[in-house]
Amino acid sequence: MMRRIGILGGMGPEATILIMQKILAGTPANDDSDHIPLIVDQNTQIPSRIKHLLEGGTVDPSAALADMARRLVAGGADVLAMPCNTAHHYADAIRGAVSVPMLDMIELSCAHAASLSTNGLVGVLGSPAVRKVGLFDGPLARHGLKAIYAEDEDATLTAIRQLKSVGPKPEARAILTAASEALCARGATVQMIACTEFSLIPESVSPQATAFDTLDQLVKEVLLQAKA
Amino acid sequence: MMRRIGILGGMGPEATILIMQKILAGTPANDDSDHIPLIVDQNTQIPSRIKHLLEGGTVDPSAALADMARRLVAGGADVLAMPCNTAHHYADAIRGAVSVPMLDMIELSCAHAASLSTNGLVGVLGSPAVRKVGLFDGPLARHGLKAIYAEDEDATLTAIRQLKSVGPKPEARAILTAASEALCARGATVQMIACTEFSLIPESVSPQATAFDTLDQLVKEVLLQAKA
Repeated sequence: MMRRIGILGGMGPEATILIMQKILAGTPANDDSDHIPLIVDQNTQIPSRIKHLLEGGTVDPSAALADMARRLVAGGADVLAMPCNTAHHYADAIRGAVSVPMLDMIELSCAHAASLSTNGLVGVLGSPAVRKVGLFDGPLARHGLKAIYAEDEDATLTAIRQLKSVGPKPEARAILTAASEALCARGATVQMIACTEFSLIPESVSPQATAFDTLDQLVKEVLLQAKA
Repeated sequence: MMRRIGILGGMGPEATILIMQKILAGTPANDDSDHIPLIVDQNTQIPSRIKHLLEGGTVDPSAALADMARRLVAGGADVLAMPCNTAHHYADAIRGAVSVPMLDMIELSCAHAASLSTNGLVGVLGSPAVRKVGLFDGPLARHGLKAIYAEDEDATLTAIRQLKSVGPKPEARAILTAASEALCARGATVQMIACTEFSLIPESVSPQATAFDTLDQLVKEVLLQAKA
């Protein structure tokens, strides 16, 4: 009997479909029943994290996230996973709302970065909101690592917004490539794709980087936890 | 405020991801919040419909489907939709378990077929289980139409099983093309893709057929109902 994984989704909706595809692809199966059961909230109505953290918005998404977690548990979730890096800033509100465990994409990714980095630096390809709230700084520091962020945050935000509105296009790809190359130039060749919008265009990271996707670290843990 | 659509999914899991992609693609959006909220049960543990209807299996999936519907409503669903044709055989058990409406992919598809057919015939490209229980026969008859089924049912079942286990491959494609061509030869040029496994390979239907996918009829109604 597999455990049912609850997905706190919709941030964005493409990334939620992507994690479902990755979970499916990661599971050897002969029939439907070999696949991992999921209950997925494609919750497109969570207040914008970018507005709250970067634009002085007054609507804190915590209450909506806690409500989503409660509904997923009511829907049968045994374990929660959230395919959105930025929203992990509100993880305490989610964990406080339910009694089932929630996987920690941030800590899983920092531990993986620690297995790769040789010079103590990790490039973080994520939303400027993630840099502003220091989402990865503490967890990386506990592994003796230092986060290095892309400097052109206006460009990063433009790319994220374009990915949300029109999907993968050359401009967003060029922005991600430039950010990744700049991090390499500053010594951060180990890099994390730390925004699930960028998870839609992983091939646009610089070929000089040793990059991984935080979403893939979450998927790896989902595959383990479903059978735990 | 959009209504949250509950998806009775996992039959199979690929088709559930496909309906989510189709709903996303069908919605003009500038940001996450423009998309339709969904609560999706990727329920891979529903007892096999094929075993129950074709192989003399004694496990009726009705109870598991009713339970899934109840959990989706507990998770916040306002309307239910089920991206699996065969499972609509058990629709009464689902409707009896909850007080929210469930969209009828079968009736929606038969009404669409009626708008296309000029000779009263409709080719049904679906599971042999669908033919055996006459899932489309009554609804088509009410539109003055007659269902014509693929004759080589062993081949059809082989194709469905292959799509569930290894995904789209040339053999499954060839089987669907042959079935579609044979239906054309019997006068049923209007054809329905009536198995969500075949929804993964719609381009393999004969180019001589005027074909549509029952899944697309369900998606069209989801887009309407979310805003109703």
